[in-house]
Amino acid sequence: MIDLAKNLATAPRRTKASVIRELLKFTNKPGVISFAGGLPDPELFPYDFVAGAVKEIMAKKGRVALQYGPTDGLPEFKEEFVKFLQKHEGVSVKPANIIVTTASQQALDIVGRLFIDASDPVLVEMPSYMGGLQVFKSYGADFVGVRMDDEGIMTDDLEERLQWLKKQDEHYKFLYLVPDFQNPSGVTLSEERRRRVIKLSEEYNIAVVEDSPYRQVRFEGSAPKMIYRLDKETHNTDNIISLFTFSKTFAPGLRIGVIVAHEQIIKKMEILKQSLDLCSSSLNQLIAAEFLRSGHFEKHIALVKKVYKTKKDTMLAALEKYMPEGVTWTRPEGGLFLWVKLPESMSADDMFEDAIRENVAYVIGSAFHCDGSGKNTMRLNFSYATPADIDEGIKRLATAVKKRLVLK
Amino acid sequence: MIDLAKNLATAPRRTKASVIRELLKFTNKPGVISFAGGLPDPELFPYDFVAGAVKEIMAKKGRVALQYGPTDGLPEFKEEFVKFLQKHEGVSVKPANIIVTTASQQALDIVGRLFIDASDPVLVEMPSYMGGLQVFKSYGADFVGVRMDDEGIMTDDLEERLQWLKKQDEHYKFLYLVPDFQNPSGVTLSEERRRRVIKLSEEYNIAVVEDSPYRQVRFEGSAPKMIYRLDKETHNTDNIISLFTFSKTFAPGLRIGVIVAHEQIIKKMEILKQSLDLCSSSLNQLIAAEFLRSGHFEKHIALVKKVYKTKKDTMLAALEKYMPEGVTWTRPEGGLFLWVKLPESMSADDMFEDAIRENVAYVIGSAFHCDGSGKNTMRLNFSYATPADIDEGIKRLATAVKKRLVLK
Repeated sequence: MIDLAKNLATAPRRTKASVIRELLKFTNKPGVISFAGGLPDPELFPYDFVAGAVKEIMAKKGRVALQYGPTDGLPEFKEEFVKFLQKHEGVSVKPANIIVTTASQQALDIVGRLFIDASDPVLVEMPSYMGGLQVFKSYGADFVGVRMDDEGIMTDDLEERLQWLKKQDEHYKFLYLVPDFQNPSGVTLSEERRRRVIKLSEEYNIAVVEDSPYRQVRFEGSAPKMIYRLDKETHNTDNIISLFTFSKTFAPGLRIGVIVAHEQIIKKMEILKQSLDLCSSSLNQLIAAEFLRSGHFEKHIALVKKVYKTKKDTMLAALEKYMPEGVTWTRPEGGLFLWVKLPESMSADDMFEDAIRENVAYVIGSAFHCDGSGKNTMRLNFSYATPADIDEGIKRLATAVKKRLVLK
Repeated sequence: MIDLAKNLATAPRRTKASVIRELLKFTNKPGVISFAGGLPDPELFPYDFVAGAVKEIMAKKGRVALQYGPTDGLPEFKEEFVKFLQKHEGVSVKPANIIVTTASQQALDIVGRLFIDASDPVLVEMPSYMGGLQVFKSYGADFVGVRMDDEGIMTDDLEERLQWLKKQDEHYKFLYLVPDFQNPSGVTLSEERRRRVIKLSEEYNIAVVEDSPYRQVRFEGSAPKMIYRLDKETHNTDNIISLFTFSKTFAPGLRIGVIVAHEQIIKKMEILKQSLDLCSSSLNQLIAAEFLRSGHFEKHIALVKKVYKTKKDTMLAALEKYMPEGVTWTRPEGGLFLWVKLPESMSADDMFEDAIRENVAYVIGSAFHCDGSGKNTMRLNFSYATPADIDEGIKRLATAVKKRLVLK
């Protein structure tokens, strides 16, 4: 065979296998309760709706569903999504502000491909979503990490980084944020800081990528406005690029996501997507359009919120009950994840094998840090396991933690 | 808004909008008979099968269909595809030799991303598939065109190019071929030349990308063996990367394709695909698996072949009837396209507007030539229009040609 070591281009040499996907192999061990993945609860998927919708689509729109579609997405889907944004987010956009993607991950690839050349700085949260770090790295991004607290990314820290980058004449292009129930931390960016982010975006002429896959899964508290909307209401920079997906509010198996941005940005993305995969599945876009049109979205999301809230509360209660002193965690108002901090001296990386021995799994927090820090942190998913397994799994995790504490 | 001229990375600046997708805008003019697209005949899509299959999948495998799947594809689909390859192509592979893609275009993107750095030479046929040229260019490929005749790529010419590249110490990595009923020319690579390509692949240590979206749509004549299979039977170089798609043999709206290659190459591709879109639609993979398993593939392809043969014969008869002397065309034994050559002195580029005025459309041949040559050529699609429209459309096209000839 050709010599791969000699023949591979730069991109594959820069693209590292996802730590999560590697960890998931361990978590398949029988008996392991896994908080490692980010899978929606399959008990809740709307199976009957999909079967019925496809029957109807084949009868009435089969020629659209099974044919190639426009690269930027089917008009039938875009129209429904425009209405959805208006109704649920108070955001007014035109179909020309929208491009359909193969869920969020392709949206991140398109953003990376559009903006990043090797050694361009990309501003990210610390911690940040691993799938974003992975694909931006494949384009050669130099990450500039910005610290977070309970209100999300620290905007003073952000401004400092931007000042420094500007002074160095660095070619920074965008800030990547997961503002709602962040993956991995579960933290939501406060409205005040959202305003500050927009102001900094204007001042430093930098795009803001608002990646919000969980926003609609809010169980409690009240939602700050989308950054995209706040921008329209305040500075109107048009610098905001918002990413949506149906993976958490409907079904990841459809691979349908959306990018919302200024028309000129969408046009550039459309040309990129031509070369990436021509278009996303017409059938799946029509299923998603019908999900929105028929009101099944509202019904489904109500169910998801109810079930995930119970699971989240179960996990919080179990953490309270079992974890030793010195361990802290976030209290997300929505989403799929919470974030645990062990005492500074402990390493969640080292503890991973102990946890597997106790038959429980998590994702190591360092994998979400662009600088490899966060060794004492871990991400826990609460959407997939049953409440009984959540209680038992946290108990096991606490056992692993306590054993390590005694060893010290 | 941020200054796009300043902020775009290299890739979008290298990625040009597809000429076909631009031309298609003109062809939407009412009354135009279009031979420009490459759409399958929507009359033939298996609508009832899809509705029935999804109902069954939701009942029995809904949890797989609506959930995330493995990046390399669902085992359920891969198993069926392995059987399909064995039965229809006499090719024995393991699931580890397969990765599922968002149809052929994503496969081409993955190949480009795996191998091409800026200024790497990529060997292509002249003419070659535009979607391949587009995505390889986006990675900065320097194309080296190899001439074709009625037996496909000219292997003497190929050897000459390879010798020259080697002498220049150029970092060439792969040869890109559409060996069966090529898009755009309709020509099939002879078995003798396939053997020669494999020998050259071994000698010059170069991968061969066998992109074959139409291979199963053969109406007449006998099929030379797949290059992938011939390699196994002769040199066993393991240098062959074969691309399949269900877009022409089932439905493009599913966006399901497959790459077959050595396990080590597939492993590298899997890591790339993680960052591109995590995985392809589980639902659509299960629909395709059921299409193969149930035998609907064979039934459907028999129908497609029958209808497309009639359409192809209608187009050939119309060309014979209407075209003036000096115009020649290929006689494909399958696929969706044929290739027309006007007299050397004529330009199909210039004639395009005349044709639209006569209410008929085609794709200019120069768009398929990496060096912009082939001005006197055009691609005609025969799968989409009805036989009556094919006859009328060719009549109109001949009128446009004759008017130009008189003008000279």
